[in-house]
Amino acid sequence: MDFSIRAANVDDCKDIARMLMELAEYEKVTDKVKISQKDLEQDGFSKNPFFHGIVAEVPEQHKTKEGHTKIGYALYFYSYSSWVGRAIYMEDLYVMPEFRGKGIGKALMSKVAQLGLAAGCRQLNFTVVDWNKSSLDFYFSQGCFDFTDKMGYHVMHCEGEELERLAQP
Amino acid sequence: MDFSIRAANVDDCKDIARMLMELAEYEKVTDKVKISQKDLEQDGFSKNPFFHGIVAEVPEQHKTKEGHTKIGYALYFYSYSSWVGRAIYMEDLYVMPEFRGKGIGKALMSKVAQLGLAAGCRQLNFTVVDWNKSSLDFYFSQGCFDFTDKMGYHVMHCEGEELERLAQP
Repeated sequence: MDFSIRAANVDDCKDIARMLMELAEYEKVTDKVKISQKDLEQDGFSKNPFFHGIVAEVPEQHKTKEGHTKIGYALYFYSYSSWVGRAIYMEDLYVMPEFRGKGIGKALMSKVAQLGLAAGCRQLNFTVVDWNKSSLDFYFSQGCFDFTDKMGYHVMHCEGEELERLAQP
Repeated sequence: MDFSIRAANVDDCKDIARMLMELAEYEKVTDKVKISQKDLEQDGFSKNPFFHGIVAEVPEQHKTKEGHTKIGYALYFYSYSSWVGRAIYMEDLYVMPEFRGKGIGKALMSKVAQLGLAAGCRQLNFTVVDWNKSSLDFYFSQGCFDFTDKMGYHVMHCEGEELERLAQP
């Protein structure tokens, strides 16, 4: 199947918000998603954006029955490792179920890797849930390694009231 | 003990590089550290910096026997969560051993939280190694939670030849 991958622009936020929620449904975490199309527009497409995105599109003849031609996306931002320096972080990688198995996810991830290398990054980072075996297998097949298992690294979060309290001097 | 916390500037990179290596020695990963003072200068203090930093300083009368007054630091960058939106990531938090237990680490982390909230971030993220019980206890005492244990999130990396290969279309 033909598909193309290009940089996301502000007009893609409606589709990204839709797919972001599809991904959350797949992960059974829709109750945790607090962001909207408007947040994506403001946070990704204003001055000093907090993230960047790419979208995968199929031609009109392959559109879904709901009429969607934007059928996959990745969000990423530049980050830093105090070991290897410049790094790129892939926050989301998603392809709609009916378009999986056609190399679109690989192409999206490859594009993120290209963008990272072009910016001088020496590492691509992301997180994955341990129950998502098909994704884990895919990532391992691409030469990725699990720092949680290998080095004992754990992902920590602080948010809400705890974050407010932490910010008190 | 008096101490102050301020934004890092390019002249702090020598001390940050020194402390970054002290942290790596503590974690027994000095062989993994590929970055230098020059990298820090270029990556943190050019246009579109990949990270920001803060340093903790003590007055001259408390300097170390080697003459150091910059005795702690944190590196951070802005990131994005597809669940909660704007986020801040704390890459490193370090206080020299002889200055621990005086609230300097808490003050550095608190400053990162303040900077995040001021930029509209709703989440502070970081990683910690599971064998570092004293740090884990400190983070838990500050209301942080472990996404690896709670949600099964694993930290994944891709670098070196694997990253180059992934970037091939």
